[in-house]
Amino acid sequence: MSLQPSGYRPSVTGYVEKGGFNRDTAYIPDRITEDGRRPEHGNADVPLWPVEPGRYRLVASWACPWANRAIIVRSLLGLEDVISMGVCGPTHDMRSWTFDLDEGGKDPVLGIERLQQAYFARFPAYPKGITVPAMVEISTGEVVTNDFPWITHDFFHEWREFHSDDAPDLWPAHLREEMDEVNKRVYTEVNNGVYRCGFAGDQESYDAAYDRLWTAMDWLEERLTDRRYLMGDAITEADVRLYTTLARFDAVYHGHFKCNRQKLTEMPALWGYARDLYQSPGFGELTRFDQIKAHYYRVHTDINPTGVVPKGPDPDVWLEPHGRG
Amino acid sequence: MSLQPSGYRPSVTGYVEKGGFNRDTAYIPDRITEDGRRPEHGNADVPLWPVEPGRYRLVASWACPWANRAIIVRSLLGLEDVISMGVCGPTHDMRSWTFDLDEGGKDPVLGIERLQQAYFARFPAYPKGITVPAMVEISTGEVVTNDFPWITHDFFHEWREFHSDDAPDLWPAHLREEMDEVNKRVYTEVNNGVYRCGFAGDQESYDAAYDRLWTAMDWLEERLTDRRYLMGDAITEADVRLYTTLARFDAVYHGHFKCNRQKLTEMPALWGYARDLYQSPGFGELTRFDQIKAHYYRVHTDINPTGVVPKGPDPDVWLEPHGRG
Repeated sequence: MSLQPSGYRPSVTGYVEKGGFNRDTAYIPDRITEDGRRPEHGNADVPLWPVEPGRYRLVASWACPWANRAIIVRSLLGLEDVISMGVCGPTHDMRSWTFDLDEGGKDPVLGIERLQQAYFARFPAYPKGITVPAMVEISTGEVVTNDFPWITHDFFHEWREFHSDDAPDLWPAHLREEMDEVNKRVYTEVNNGVYRCGFAGDQESYDAAYDRLWTAMDWLEERLTDRRYLMGDAITEADVRLYTTLARFDAVYHGHFKCNRQKLTEMPALWGYARDLYQSPGFGELTRFDQIKAHYYRVHTDINPTGVVPKGPDPDVWLEPHGRG
Repeated sequence: MSLQPSGYRPSVTGYVEKGGFNRDTAYIPDRITEDGRRPEHGNADVPLWPVEPGRYRLVASWACPWANRAIIVRSLLGLEDVISMGVCGPTHDMRSWTFDLDEGGKDPVLGIERLQQAYFARFPAYPKGITVPAMVEISTGEVVTNDFPWITHDFFHEWREFHSDDAPDLWPAHLREEMDEVNKRVYTEVNNGVYRCGFAGDQESYDAAYDRLWTAMDWLEERLTDRRYLMGDAITEADVRLYTTLARFDAVYHGHFKCNRQKLTEMPALWGYARDLYQSPGFGELTRFDQIKAHYYRVHTDINPTGVVPKGPDPDVWLEPHGRG
């Protein structure tokens, strides 16, 4: 494994190759499971850590869509009291996300200034990007996992004992197969699709990325025309995963990533759906447009050399009636 | 006069100073007037050239809003047969606009590859930016003037003998005073205002530029709510001057220049007005969105280092019914 593959972007754990953007998907694969048992889904041949209230800290960022997922799911399930949370600021340098929002620039629980320190505490020569979300063991200060899809998956499946009474069924068993398919398409075509547009290094890669993204956006627009949520009548994790991209769409992806066939506000079903979620508990209050914009426009100096952050669009439109429900 | 002021941008004939953008407004001030008489309006203490069919060539570019004005006014007045037109391609290097759209890369009438050659033919050490629109004397190949507001002004006032019978009254005498005021505000706040946003070198300059732009956009939205055109019931040059900025708004200024409080399509009166003009003779058919986007996104490598041109937005929305009239 090379230390720094050519074109490597630590901030997004991906690299650029031949003009196109490829996300590096080799994360720290550890799982946190009930009693450290073998998990039912996903990769089980990895180090297993036991669920234990107060033992782990979720390190996130308001800016990052992958971390925003974990922030929202933790809230929806009522896990705030058993999994504490540290939040990094919107910008970071080539090395690491930092706790610059905290007093003295240090996470008050972990006592570190840079998330990198938790990665190095466990892997002294950790060669990959320092990413959020990350689960960190508080007593040792060591990162446990940064494998974001499994962090939220396991919040639901493995921490059930600690869910609030009114926690939604984010992974309905009878919909699992269809939901896996929806999640996969949303991930490759939309969550990652916007990055594929924005990080395209040449016109040909961009054009292909744009067409791929909008094919998926049209599919979603149609799917949400006769369904309130992606999987039907109730919120599932599939909605959380799509929401964090939609919340960033007009604020950053439309202009900064050139995903500009339409604004989200111009897609009637998707825009109604996005506002419906935004106005539901756990979504809007955990969406920080100022942090989102500061992150993308200041960190990607190769796309936005001046680092100037646009003042628009007006986020108040998210509070308009959505007409769904 | 220094040869290359610090921060000089030849492509837009302006320079950046202390973070803000200032347009260099010192153009070649010559006027082309009827019989070479002293013009009634504007600066008359300049070299005067006589109106003469076939003597001059308008050199323009589909991309440039200032040149697009001249293209549209020439058409509205029916001057195509007396003032020929050469068109430069959308991109140019640090030195000059070029005739790369023409066969062999040469303007078929002037026989030159670079507009710079016409400037140098008259001023061998011309120290400023090579800009479009420019009026060039065909026989000598020398530039006459690039003073864009006066080029279109004089197309109307000085070439009257050659106007078509149905030419609109682009400068109604009884509205002159009010129109000068409207033109001035549109110029400083909107035509230039979008550049002030896009070329802002720091957050403070950008924020101020954005507020200034949208104050003017709100004024226009209100003004056009109870007027079909800027000066009332008929098209005037004030409309041409605003139109060329509006035509570029969603295609480039919204994203590339960060003028993103709203899209033009989200301003009901302005959007209806813009479509009304687009669908009128002389406007839509002389608006080339592909050339416009190629220009801004490829030329401003300091704003868009990859040079990738966004595929959106869909220009077909310009053909939707405007409901005015």
